[in-house]
Amino acid sequence: MALTLKQIAELTGGEVVGDPAVVVSRVAPIRDAQPGDITFIHNEKYAPFAKETKASAIIVSPELRSVGGSLIVARNPYLAYAKTVAALMEEPLRHWRGVHPTAVVAESARLGRDVSLGPHVVVEADAVIGDRVAILASAYIGHGARVGDDTVIHPNASIYSDAIVGKRCTIHANVSIGSSGFGWAPDGDRYERIPQVGKAVIGDDVSIGAGSVVNRGALGDTIIGNGTKIDSLVIVSHNVEVGENCLFVSHVGVSGSVKIGNHVTLGGQVGVAGHLEIGDNAQVAAQSGVSHSLAPDRVYFGSPARPIGHAKRTIAAIQKLPELRNEIKHVQKRVLEIAALLDKDVGEMSAASLGDEKPS
Amino acid sequence: MALTLKQIAELTGGEVVGDPAVVVSRVAPIRDAQPGDITFIHNEKYAPFAKETKASAIIVSPELRSVGGSLIVARNPYLAYAKTVAALMEEPLRHWRGVHPTAVVAESARLGRDVSLGPHVVVEADAVIGDRVAILASAYIGHGARVGDDTVIHPNASIYSDAIVGKRCTIHANVSIGSSGFGWAPDGDRYERIPQVGKAVIGDDVSIGAGSVVNRGALGDTIIGNGTKIDSLVIVSHNVEVGENCLFVSHVGVSGSVKIGNHVTLGGQVGVAGHLEIGDNAQVAAQSGVSHSLAPDRVYFGSPARPIGHAKRTIAAIQKLPELRNEIKHVQKRVLEIAALLDKDVGEMSAASLGDEKPS
Amino acid sequence: MALTLKQIAELTGGEVVGDPAVVVSRVAPIRDAQPGDITFIHNEKYAPFAKETKASAIIVSPELRSVGGSLIVARNPYLAYAKTVAALMEEPLRHWRGVHPTAVVAESARLGRDVSLGPHVVVEADAVIGDRVAILASAYIGHGARVGDDTVIHPNASIYSDAIVGKRCTIHANVSIGSSGFGWAPDGDRYERIPQVGKAVIGDDVSIGAGSVVNRGALGDTIIGNGTKIDSLVIVSHNVEVGENCLFVSHVGVSGSVKIGNHVTLGGQVGVAGHLEIGDNAQVAAQSGVSHSLAPDRVYFGSPARPIGHAKRTIAAIQKLPELRNEIKHVQKRVLEIAALLDKDVGEMSAASLGDEKPS
Repeated sequence: MALTLKQIAELTGGEVVGDPAVVVSRVAPIRDAQPGDITFIHNEKYAPFAKETKASAIIVSPELRSVGGSLIVARNPYLAYAKTVAALMEEPLRHWRGVHPTAVVAESARLGRDVSLGPHVVVEADAVIGDRVAILASAYIGHGARVGDDTVIHPNASIYSDAIVGKRCTIHANVSIGSSGFGWAPDGDRYERIPQVGKAVIGDDVSIGAGSVVNRGALGDTIIGNGTKIDSLVIVSHNVEVGENCLFVSHVGVSGSVKIGNHVTLGGQVGVAGHLEIGDNAQVAAQSGVSHSLAPDRVYFGSPARPIGHAKRTIAAIQKLPELRNEIKHVQKRVLEIAALLDKDVGEMSAASLGDEKPS
Repeated sequence: MALTLKQIAELTGGEVVGDPAVVVSRVAPIRDAQPGDITFIHNEKYAPFAKETKASAIIVSPELRSVGGSLIVARNPYLAYAKTVAALMEEPLRHWRGVHPTAVVAESARLGRDVSLGPHVVVEADAVIGDRVAILASAYIGHGARVGDDTVIHPNASIYSDAIVGKRCTIHANVSIGSSGFGWAPDGDRYERIPQVGKAVIGDDVSIGAGSVVNRGALGDTIIGNGTKIDSLVIVSHNVEVGENCLFVSHVGVSGSVKIGNHVTLGGQVGVAGHLEIGDNAQVAAQSGVSHSLAPDRVYFGSPARPIGHAKRTIAAIQKLPELRNEIKHVQKRVLEIAALLDKDVGEMSAASLGDEKPS
Repeated sequence: MALTLKQIAELTGGEVVGDPAVVVSRVAPIRDAQPGDITFIHNEKYAPFAKETKASAIIVSPELRSVGGSLIVARNPYLAYAKTVAALMEEPLRHWRGVHPTAVVAESARLGRDVSLGPHVVVEADAVIGDRVAILASAYIGHGARVGDDTVIHPNASIYSDAIVGKRCTIHANVSIGSSGFGWAPDGDRYERIPQVGKAVIGDDVSIGAGSVVNRGALGDTIIGNGTKIDSLVIVSHNVEVGENCLFVSHVGVSGSVKIGNHVTLGGQVGVAGHLEIGDNAQVAAQSGVSHSLAPDRVYFGSPARPIGHAKRTIAAIQKLPELRNEIKHVQKRVLEIAALLDKDVGEMSAASLGDEKPS
């Protein structure tokens, strides 16, 4: 595949600076790029490399339009880069086409048009598979589960009975959707299982990374909204409701019955306690622990998660604690000295304070 | 399915307040419930909804027996709720019945009565499968592994050779039981593998959530006690011994050779360092890091984990650090002023202290 | 299997103290060992058990050569122990030998000599499998993927298309190698997928624990160096480059484009933010959060990760915060008393300071 800058500008909604007839056939990082490549700058700190790169063209933001050389100027250069890679470089997903003879499809299951089922795929009774769905080797679609048009399910993924997966989703290898939530009623020292009779419902255009888990609901459903992207090894527990276009980075854990708005970002290893609400556009930095509901439109950090300004001041203060302790010791000493000068019983009281080294 | 309140009272050991002939056929959350539903209050903060709910009956604790309407009064309303859901709503687990023709069962494997093996299940040589066991599609039972009566193993789970799984267990999708522990002997810069020749031994009535991992032992065995419930994406390392009726929430990581008592709760994302002991009934709050052995019967929190009262005071103090810092600055200034008034060399010394802003 | 101490000394490069004709047939922990067993002390705190053990011999370090009884004295007793277990106790890995009739191998795939493919294994087109490779039940090898000689791949592992796995590797159950990285370009509120066209490249002698995930690269490759050992439920994101002989403990998460040197250790649940560098021989303690690049040859701890000495002083200071707060209150009180004695307006200012309890 090869494209002219004119074609890339049309594809990305960008503008050509320089010769629109320049041809590129590959996208490469700015320091590795060779003639015939197009590269990109989506962070100003890489701007100095624009002079040195061997690339034939660069995708840049409007601020960098005078950086020199042949350019595609785009308002959102990262998006333009994504579209250019898709046009120039992406190979089609390689998988078995059609229904492999070793796939096991129950008689009552319904398959759409142009469905691909790889070797050893299992589609159980009453399952419904949309058009152009691709299910790769050894993946499992349980009884009554539904998979929307154009969705891809990777090897060894397990979709439990009655789960619903939307259109144009990507479900990666070893994902589990619709497993029972962690619901146990204490009965003395032992635990009685609380039946989990709800479903897992995944919207359209959702991506779920390898090894992640979405539980079915206890009574109602667990819901993942349209366009939400989930990284690897994430757990979304029973009855969680996630809005649209959220990002959950790897190792996120969301406890039961949490309600998450639209366009929320949870950084890697973030944990969210049960029954909380997180407002639209909230962003929670990596490793934070969310123990209270979070208002929309703010950035949070820490464990417990707090608005990031406060959290960062707290962390800065923690880092200076050893010296703070020294300062207090200095002040205590000064106060003792002053008290001695004044020759009053104040001095005695201060000494008692200084000696108080045990935790209260 | 439909039951009278009289029948539900018998089933749950509760008491009817109101008309015992009232019939219900579904359990629903208090705000969603409709006529014909039964709902429940297991947290007093939901008591105000008792007046508004459309449910035909409510399961409540004795404290709420005068809340009005038809009631099931139960000492443990959460347990009564669990039993009512099981009676009214739970569908039987849907899976292939009998041994599917694509299942591969070694000649020396022994299958109990009424065993179900789904499509593409593999049971290796010398494995022993108990009565009424259900193994779903593409799950793997290794050489010499044993699975107890009435256990359910979900799709794509992998039970390594020689692992033992007890009776009435639930092993969810993509679980790995009996994989090698992380044992490496440094040999200069490289690592020599320490053979892992022990087993993974899972007791009766254990549940293991999707994607979780239980390693085999290095020399002895890794042991999970009867009745213990493990959530998703948990790792229990080699030679860990876990007692009975413990709860491990998702993303818990327990390092090698840890001994955990009975009825211990580990919250989500808790990490436990190697070779420690955790006493009976200890509870460790989410995201804590356990770096020392923990005494029984207490609640712990933080990283490092400490008794929760101390940990909470510490967190409260941390949150107030920025203002604490301001207070110290105020005091320092006051001391300087006093020293100046006294017209002594004390002032000079305090100034040195105030200027000392670099970390010690 | 049984060996004399003379044979064990040769095998391990150790020295016999006592009778070299003593025969042992099993390795056991020092407190469980019986006559006929050999045991080991690799930690001096277990030295007192040397008197009491029933073992016929003990592997010890040179410092303990006068502990009594029959000994193998080795410079690296942990390594000598590993070699002794391997010689005396390790059973061969049990799996199906040869290509099982239910394995599906594409016509264009190439298999080396003495390859074992278990039941329901899938090897897609253009894949290349080295000599003596063992792939266990239901594992998946994607289009064009390569697996080096003598590697073992456990059940239900998924190797995506074009991934490369080196020689003598162990890939555990339910591992995913080569899944798409988490690359999304914001386009207003929604996200556009950034195609992931690189590969996952795993070196020789690498071990990857059950359920772990290694993403393919976005443009270039994700690389795991020779000899690196990865525990369970770890995620290595796109374009990460990991050097040789690293150890990543369970639940580690490494964000995109991180460069990690040789012989680096990341403790359990450590998170590393994107685009950082970690120098050779760095060690990061469990649960740390790495938010800045780390210099080589040091030990780090905390979130954010810092040199461990500083981090431990900070943690000690945090634990003493409640009493620090009390000390400040005492000093404030003393200063007020002194100011009152001096009968000046200083007192008024201090009172204002004391009353200032709200966060700044």
